[in-house]
Amino acid sequence: MDAKRIAAERAADYIQDGMVVGLGTGSTAYWAIQRIGQRVQEGLRIRAIATSNASEKQAKELGIPLISFADVQEIDLTIDGADEVDPNFQLIKGGGGALLREKIVASSSSKFIVIVDDSKLVGRLGRFPLPIEIVRFGYEATIHKLRELGCEPVLREVEGKAYITDNGNYIVDAYFGAIADPKELESKLNMIPGVVENGLFVDMADRVIAGKRDGGILELERQR
Amino acid sequence: MDAKRIAAERAADYIQDGMVVGLGTGSTAYWAIQRIGQRVQEGLRIRAIATSNASEKQAKELGIPLISFADVQEIDLTIDGADEVDPNFQLIKGGGGALLREKIVASSSSKFIVIVDDSKLVGRLGRFPLPIEIVRFGYEATIHKLRELGCEPVLREVEGKAYITDNGNYIVDAYFGAIADPKELESKLNMIPGVVENGLFVDMADRVIAGKRDGGILELERQR
Repeated sequence: MDAKRIAAERAADYIQDGMVVGLGTGSTAYWAIQRIGQRVQEGLRIRAIATSNASEKQAKELGIPLISFADVQEIDLTIDGADEVDPNFQLIKGGGGALLREKIVASSSSKFIVIVDDSKLVGRLGRFPLPIEIVRFGYEATIHKLRELGCEPVLREVEGKAYITDNGNYIVDAYFGAIADPKELESKLNMIPGVVENGLFVDMADRVIAGKRDGGILELERQR
Repeated sequence: MDAKRIAAERAADYIQDGMVVGLGTGSTAYWAIQRIGQRVQEGLRIRAIATSNASEKQAKELGIPLISFADVQEIDLTIDGADEVDPNFQLIKGGGGALLREKIVASSSSKFIVIVDDSKLVGRLGRFPLPIEIVRFGYEATIHKLRELGCEPVLREVEGKAYITDNGNYIVDAYFGAIADPKELESKLNMIPGVVENGLFVDMADRVIAGKRDGGILELERQR
């Protein structure tokens, strides 16, 4: 079985009757939503909030009851993928462009389980470029400020045009190289006017489940 | 003469030939733009970046040459109003809803002059509610997190509908009461996913010019 799917299905086992569940976005979260749909069809009673239009569509097709933040302000458990996971459970997310909604959902969750294949486990974050969502107004000035933080910022494009997020903003992929202090960097990024959000998820993941190509599973829980 | 206008016209005198100038937004910035337009008609050569559609329109009508951040990433001098100014030059801005663009422009400026009438000078920030620009997705959860910071957050409405900023976001007016540490609060607000920007302008103002009703001027320069 696919390493991503192994991790995703294990994570779905943590869902219990009555929970409000956050549904992630991407190729690993896809498998979690599939498994959750199966469990709902078998009688599991939950309500879910999706982090993207794609995940919402998938959940609807599987009969997973969907709600919005108008109904609840706190989520019991969110399951989502990541682009990189370091030994302190710090993450880079946003390769798929949904980082803002994913971060809003994860930050409203009592428990946040991250599911990956084991190629995403790294000793230090930064091999993967850090996605940063920025406001369109003055984006050139914001990119200038990002460069001053010591990265090589690249405006994300699709078919020759700037990529636009679900929220109407741009994404910059910032090549920092090894990130020594994710917490400090996240704070510096958030203090730049024009930066809406960034793909560093610091002190948010409670559990990491990594599927291996040989079928095994590595499961780690963060000690608080 | 109007106290706002006295401050605005004094500030406009700081503009020199060749400068790139940031144009603020609001009833006080209005008078600065009027005076700058007059100086341009008298031969002053500058280029300007506006913080709102209203200010851009006014500048165009006065013949002030306008550029964008595609042309320059750094501004020599920005002149803008504020809703409150404390003795440490910390500001609350955003009553007019343009705080995000105003902050992007001010943060890209070598010099930032704040112009007010003297009723805006306060011993401590917070009598005026703090405007906070937030993402529409999950805004209920974001408001919930703001409340946990100890304020009474109110979604800004116009004619019974949520107010939408130039950037497509909502504004929350947050009643904190006296703000003991603006810098700390700004940082906490910026760390909330869903918060795009807030109206605290910390360590940004270089000079405060306050017009008095009796025609006098109070002019203060920040010691760095």
